[in-house]
Amino acid sequence: MSINKVCLKEKFEKFNDYWSPKIVGDLNNSHIKLAKFKGDFVWHKHDNEDELFLVTKGHLTIKLRDKDIELGEGEFVIIPKGVEHLPTAKEEVHVMLVELKSTLNTGDVGGDMTVEDLDWI
Amino acid sequence: MSINKVCLKEKFEKFNDYWSPKIVGDLNNSHIKLAKFKGDFVWHKHDNEDELFLVTKGHLTIKLRDKDIELGEGEFVIIPKGVEHLPTAKEEVHVMLVELKSTLNTGDVGGDMTVEDLDWI
Repeated sequence: MSINKVCLKEKFEKFNDYWSPKIVGDLNNSHIKLAKFKGDFVWHKHDNEDELFLVTKGHLTIKLRDKDIELGEGEFVIIPKGVEHLPTAKEEVHVMLVELKSTLNTGDVGGDMTVEDLDWI
Repeated sequence: MSINKVCLKEKFEKFNDYWSPKIVGDLNNSHIKLAKFKGDFVWHKHDNEDELFLVTKGHLTIKLRDKDIELGEGEFVIIPKGVEHLPTAKEEVHVMLVELKSTLNTGDVGGDMTVEDLDWI
């Protein structure tokens, strides 16, 4: 088994598409994913999965139905299962996600922004 | 349910003890923990749990039996279940851990550095 470190900055240089998480780690029953966001995502929820968003560069707003959560570099939030949320970013933001392997990016709503069969980078 | 962000820097200012992880998040069946390390830990492994170490400040060496892994800020490694490892840091390092709730810091060896009943901060 090869055990190698992951440099977040180097991994973020490997892709430029928005809203398309890439897998960078396999941890128990979860994946560590990296994504670049810009603009608005869609309102959705994950019925069975909590989801962690850690900002490593830039600024991310996660809209909830009752408030907005503003995340700067070095800040994270965990959106519990069942809670509707909409990530949005005026400028490009780099995000590390930790979520169960079963988690689909668009949760219960599907649609054009759904990404299945994520790539490892 | 109250959903609040976590600022890593602010949380790290709340404690100064080494080798004593604090819980900052509950994510599915895992905990997000923060720890400060300095000096040598002990050789150990986790028979059933993979463990993620993300360095947020400073430098961490994780010794494996066949090589050393050197982690700087913004770098992580996942130590798979069953793999012996020994974290060590010449100077204070700040680390974010992601691991199953069942994970004990000293894994299979126990001893004086074992911490049970971790505090939330």
